Amino acid sequence: MRMIDLIERKKQGKELSEEELCYFIEGFTGGKIPNYQAAAFLMAVCFTGMTDREIAWMTGAMARSGDQVDLSSIPGVKVDKHSTGGVGDKTTLILAPLAAACGVPVAKMSGRGLGHTGGTVDKLEAIPGFCTVMDRADFLRTVRETGVCVVGQSGNLAPADKKLYALRDVTGTVDSIPLIAASVMSKKIAAGADAIVLDVKYGGGAFMKTPQDAVRLAQKMVEIGRACGRKMAAVITNMDVPLGRCIGNGLEVAEAIEVLQGKGPADLREVCLVLAAQMLSLAGKGPADRCRQTAEEALDSGAALEKFRRMCAAQGGSSEIFAKPQSLYEKATVYQLSAPWSGYVRRMDAEACGRASMLLGAGRETADSVIDPAAGIVLCRKTGDAVKAGETLARLYTNRSDRIEEAKRKLLEGYEVGEEEPAEVPLVYKIIIE
Amino acid sequence: MRMIDLIERKKQGKELSEEELCYFIEGFTGGKIPNYQAAAFLMAVCFTGMTDREIAWMTGAMARSGDQVDLSSIPGVKVDKHSTGGVGDKTTLILAPLAAACGVPVAKMSGRGLGHTGGTVDKLEAIPGFCTVMDRADFLRTVRETGVCVVGQSGNLAPADKKLYALRDVTGTVDSIPLIAASVMSKKIAAGADAIVLDVKYGGGAFMKTPQDAVRLAQKMVEIGRACGRKMAAVITNMDVPLGRCIGNGLEVAEAIEVLQGKGPADLREVCLVLAAQMLSLAGKGPADRCRQTAEEALDSGAALEKFRRMCAAQGGSSEIFAKPQSLYEKATVYQLSAPWSGYVRRMDAEACGRASMLLGAGRETADSVIDPAAGIVLCRKTGDAVKAGETLARLYTNRSDRIEEAKRKLLEGYEVGEEEPAEVPLVYKIIIE
Repeated sequence: MRMIDLIERKKQGKELSEEELCYFIEGFTGGKIPNYQAAAFLMAVCFTGMTDREIAWMTGAMARSGDQVDLSSIPGVKVDKHSTGGVGDKTTLILAPLAAACGVPVAKMSGRGLGHTGGTVDKLEAIPGFCTVMDRADFLRTVRETGVCVVGQSGNLAPADKKLYALRDVTGTVDSIPLIAASVMSKKIAAGADAIVLDVKYGGGAFMKTPQDAVRLAQKMVEIGRACGRKMAAVITNMDVPLGRCIGNGLEVAEAIEVLQGKGPADLREVCLVLAAQMLSLAGKGPADRCRQTAEEALDSGAALEKFRRMCAAQGGSSEIFAKPQSLYEKATVYQLSAPWSGYVRRMDAEACGRASMLLGAGRETADSVIDPAAGIVLCRKTGDAVKAGETLARLYTNRSDRIEEAKRKLLEGYEVGEEEPAEVPLVYKIIIE
Repeated sequence: MRMIDLIERKKQGKELSEEELCYFIEGFTGGKIPNYQAAAFLMAVCFTGMTDREIAWMTGAMARSGDQVDLSSIPGVKVDKHSTGGVGDKTTLILAPLAAACGVPVAKMSGRGLGHTGGTVDKLEAIPGFCTVMDRADFLRTVRETGVCVVGQSGNLAPADKKLYALRDVTGTVDSIPLIAASVMSKKIAAGADAIVLDVKYGGGAFMKTPQDAVRLAQKMVEIGRACGRKMAAVITNMDVPLGRCIGNGLEVAEAIEVLQGKGPADLREVCLVLAAQMLSLAGKGPADRCRQTAEEALDSGAALEKFRRMCAAQGGSSEIFAKPQSLYEKATVYQLSAPWSGYVRRMDAEACGRASMLLGAGRETADSVIDPAAGIVLCRKTGDAVKAGETLARLYTNRSDRIEEAKRKLLEGYEVGEEEPAEVPLVYKIIIE
């Protein structure tokens, strides 16, 4: 087999065989196929696409390129959840203990943030003492004992994806739905869960800009998962506006605790309940509407919060955050951003909010930036809210006083104000269950 | 400027600026832009193409990437000729002295052959003593004194093209008309002639399979040349059938001498006269039909042969070949290929003829194969000829008796025979003059 022939065939839009796609993934990961041939192949895929079978075959090869987590020692249906990334997205902090509180074991590996989007591991590390690095045996034992454990991705999970992603990032081949789907799903398949719920976001703060693209991506991922023997569901949600009011690691943990206390912003609680209903349903806990009720009860009764408390304790996190959530962000100085105009917030640029938060120290500009857990933004006004000139639009938390003016400017640019109240955009665009 | 942005824009089908294309060519040639980014860019070009301006800008940057030959010390309009390559194409051996005999100076750099097509430098080196390596000053002096000199391409002519071609060859990005046009023209522009006549071939033995593709390629090349200030013409010729009857270096020199003596195969003479008419006309010798007459006279009077004789002498070639042309191939053993059937030759596979000749030792299988100047094929029957079973189809010349059966089989496979005489395909499909 020769890589040049695979490139030529893909360029002509022909379907490759499972054997050929395994040859590509194994050869590339093992360094036998050079980057320049892989780059040409990836660019051809951007133009000619891949069939569902091809994506599933490639994903399988990528999942098998490194460690594959064996969760069989944990009883029950293990459910994973993946979000394609957004601004203020702290749903995992809520969903993992919520599902566990409803009797569904969650053994989850999460990522870190880069650019304007955050990562669950960074958020958890805002909790003093919280440990996201654990060996495989401790990870499995914690899930068996506590019902839930969330750690960082181990080094050798789908190394093919890691190497491919690094190449896509510098060759203009990131925005291909087959490649995105294979990238996400290879890690999820290798992580070993029996069922996976996808939160595919669209809008200004998301990678997919239109709901149609998000649906296409979700369908591909659901098909790959099924081809690999996983139970699958996907929820398409809006990310034109940051989820909840808090952006920044410590602030987001505090907001997650609010939701786990049966309070918190309505949009965040709603997305969590929709996702939880799908997770419980895939785990065999009954139809989605009944599962949603179960999840609501677990939030309102404090059962989910108690599970989060136990998860923190098991992973070394300080219990002080429950008595005093403000300890998560009080080390930062607070600045007010006042509205220079009056009217309705008609639109927000979620990406601008994320970038402003990054400037304050809450995110990574490059892969080795250091994160300030106390930095971030609380949005006092979001799309649909009325505001009068001089009222507080947002509070900015930071230890970088030199950056505050730039961050304020960027955040303000992200607001669009008008006289009329804007039409409401539904939070959940579509649910895909197969 | 960042290469990733250029890749993204080209992927979206947008036009790049001259500055951006120079940045790509200079960065890639200088090793600052890695192969994998160049490969992704080239694949994107295969799908979205390039505008005429982009091709001209990129060609200019490629031509400037190395030495640029200055022919200004030679009086008159210097005319170059380029063929896109075929089987049995020895037109340069005839055209260079023919144009010179008509008063047009020819300072030509030619290439070597690879695969089933031959190269002019290999053909000239079949002449004992003939030297194709010359320093720049000697080259120019020879043209001034003799009116003609044909040498190999010097090492540093359009190094960007050399590096790009090597990458295209292993990344499935060879068959893009903008990239082919830029590759050919960058070398021609750097070689310094005032006017260029292109012989763009189509058919089974050529790179372009249809006359339409050949016209598209020719038009692009003509436009590039004009944008770079060159006078241009292109002739689209058929290459379903090898040109003339001889394939192989020494045999082709002998056949070229025949044409220069006013004899030789009609098809070869005709293509030479059409090309010569364009060369002379671009050089200001009058309209093409009158130039054709001038060229015919130079062949029939022996003036062109005399010029070839002087060129050989100036470049160290033995004069024995004129008295005894068979010395060019008599060191090989001759084998007859007899027709196993009777009928009309309806079709020939020119590429199969080239490959059979390569097996006999006349061509290079890899870049460092050694060529046997005496090896090759004389086709006694070509498309349109009638043949009876047992008559000689071809004579094979080789010193590799171990390969003769394979070569015979391959050559025979290239013949298609039927009862009806085939329709004649015109040798010249189109002439493009702007």
